[in-house]
Amino acid sequence: MTPGDPVTLVAEARSGSRGALARLLTYVESASSQHRATVAVAYASPPPYVLGLTGPPGAGKSTLGDLLIRALLDGAPLGEAVERVAVLCVDPSSPFTGGAILGDRIRMQEHATDERVFIRSMATRGHLGGLSLAVPDAVRVLGAVGFALVIVETVGVGQMEVEIASAADSTVVVTNPGWGDSMQANKAGLLEVADVFVINKADRSGVEETRRDLEQMLDLGRSRPWRPPIVETSATERRGVGDLVAALDGHRRFLGEAALAAARRERTRAALVGVLRALVQAQTLVGSSGAIFEELVDALSENRTDPYRAAETLLSTS
Amino acid sequence: MTPGDPVTLVAEARSGSRGALARLLTYVESASSQHRATVAVAYASPPPYVLGLTGPPGAGKSTLGDLLIRALLDGAPLGEAVERVAVLCVDPSSPFTGGAILGDRIRMQEHATDERVFIRSMATRGHLGGLSLAVPDAVRVLGAVGFALVIVETVGVGQMEVEIASAADSTVVVTNPGWGDSMQANKAGLLEVADVFVINKADRSGVEETRRDLEQMLDLGRSRPWRPPIVETSATERRGVGDLVAALDGHRRFLGEAALAAARRERTRAALVGVLRALVQAQTLVGSSGAIFEELVDALSENRTDPYRAAETLLSTS
Repeated sequence: MTPGDPVTLVAEARSGSRGALARLLTYVESASSQHRATVAVAYASPPPYVLGLTGPPGAGKSTLGDLLIRALLDGAPLGEAVERVAVLCVDPSSPFTGGAILGDRIRMQEHATDERVFIRSMATRGHLGGLSLAVPDAVRVLGAVGFALVIVETVGVGQMEVEIASAADSTVVVTNPGWGDSMQANKAGLLEVADVFVINKADRSGVEETRRDLEQMLDLGRSRPWRPPIVETSATERRGVGDLVAALDGHRRFLGEAALAAARRERTRAALVGVLRALVQAQTLVGSSGAIFEELVDALSENRTDPYRAAETLLSTS
Repeated sequence: MTPGDPVTLVAEARSGSRGALARLLTYVESASSQHRATVAVAYASPPPYVLGLTGPPGAGKSTLGDLLIRALLDGAPLGEAVERVAVLCVDPSSPFTGGAILGDRIRMQEHATDERVFIRSMATRGHLGGLSLAVPDAVRVLGAVGFALVIVETVGVGQMEVEIASAADSTVVVTNPGWGDSMQANKAGLLEVADVFVINKADRSGVEETRRDLEQMLDLGRSRPWRPPIVETSATERRGVGDLVAALDGHRRFLGEAALAAARRERTRAALVGVLRALVQAQTLVGSSGAIFEELVDALSENRTDPYRAAETLLSTS
């Protein structure tokens, strides 16, 4: 074990080193030579409980998330008492997540003196499969260094954002009064993934219509054993956060150990297929250049082989 | 060599058996166990000269194609004298190409008594990479059984159709007076791939405006050593077909041996990457199920491995 070695860094991060944790997260979000060693140690620990937080930009997810963290650390239970919370802010639309990083700085100040809160923006810097692989890896790193609860917050309602946020044990979809337009593009997707709906900014007019719309869509949608409760909050007035925690606690208790394990197994299957797909795509890229590739193009041009045999040669040598 | 064996069938098709040729083409368009043996023999012969024919539905491609075939077989040279012609009709939008097959029947009657013409609709019936792989394979089968000229006709101007038609040595884009609307969706793509433009139905009004539009777009577009000539035809009045043959002959002579070989090498590279991609995608599918996959999902669920190591295990065992 040398300095900068993932096993060492995990030990340091467990003892409270934020620098060590930041470095581990950089390893998983980049095409670092330490990526494989980092995931090997990260996945050796059980996963944390993951809370997904998604909804249209401007819905007030960050402020609500901060109030949620405060409530949990002040003693509101989520399945069990919460001692530390990590937040991953994910913006798939921005390669450098400038906006989220700025948001981080502001929120960091709020939680700066609290050792129990860790906030990090996720950027893609060459990770094999982009954020949809990097975020699960980062979640496991956070689990391995001692965070039992990780909040994954995405900035919008695009397909990728909803996919990332919904790879969670409980997914919160944050809306506002008059939400219809902002979510129209992916309404069905959001309905499918929501475990809890929040009508935030419930001090504004139109709350009842929005609730009616949501209830109606839930009535029309696929019947599921868990019907997502609809919670009204006002983050600016610090109202309704207790109801949100209660709804999340209710969902976690509803899941229980068996259903949680079954859902996680399904997500594990999907994640493994995702990694497999990324690896074979990388293999295609590697196979599509180099001396052997050019030799095979020669052979094809001279009618000495066929493309299927040539492609198999590339796969067997790459 | 047994009956139904591709090597036997190629010999039979060379001697004029249409049944043998039809069977070989069925082998390459389906996930047949004979697919690999068929391509092995097909790609051992040099490729035929390929003419792509594309344009919006209703532009009169089929009628024009028939007149073109007639002119060629009547002695108009295309680089050299044409002794036999094969036509592949491709409709990527229809899994069973019902429309094209109907068109075939009508055209078959026209050429029924002519042993020098072979017309076939291409359908995808489980080929690994769909029509974009099956069509090049079929072209090589036709080359191997003795067709020096193959016309690949697609029914529309979608991306896939233009891609298929443009994987040709010379590509003809058929338009009509007032063509603008019907090609709007993929105008840039059509401009890029056209070696010859045809304004068919030139007996109608608007020919001059259409020619002006095309010339202007060619002026604005990327400068290329070969500027596509614009030929006016009227298939119903059997007018302008001689000009079309002359334009195609001009393009073939312009290409010469060296440029033709270079262009074919580029298409060979792209084709090999296409087959490679299809093979690795198939590998992903195979890897994503079965006993080993389930064992690895178990191992992941029990924190005994990470998804990258698991995916590599799948790739090494599949």
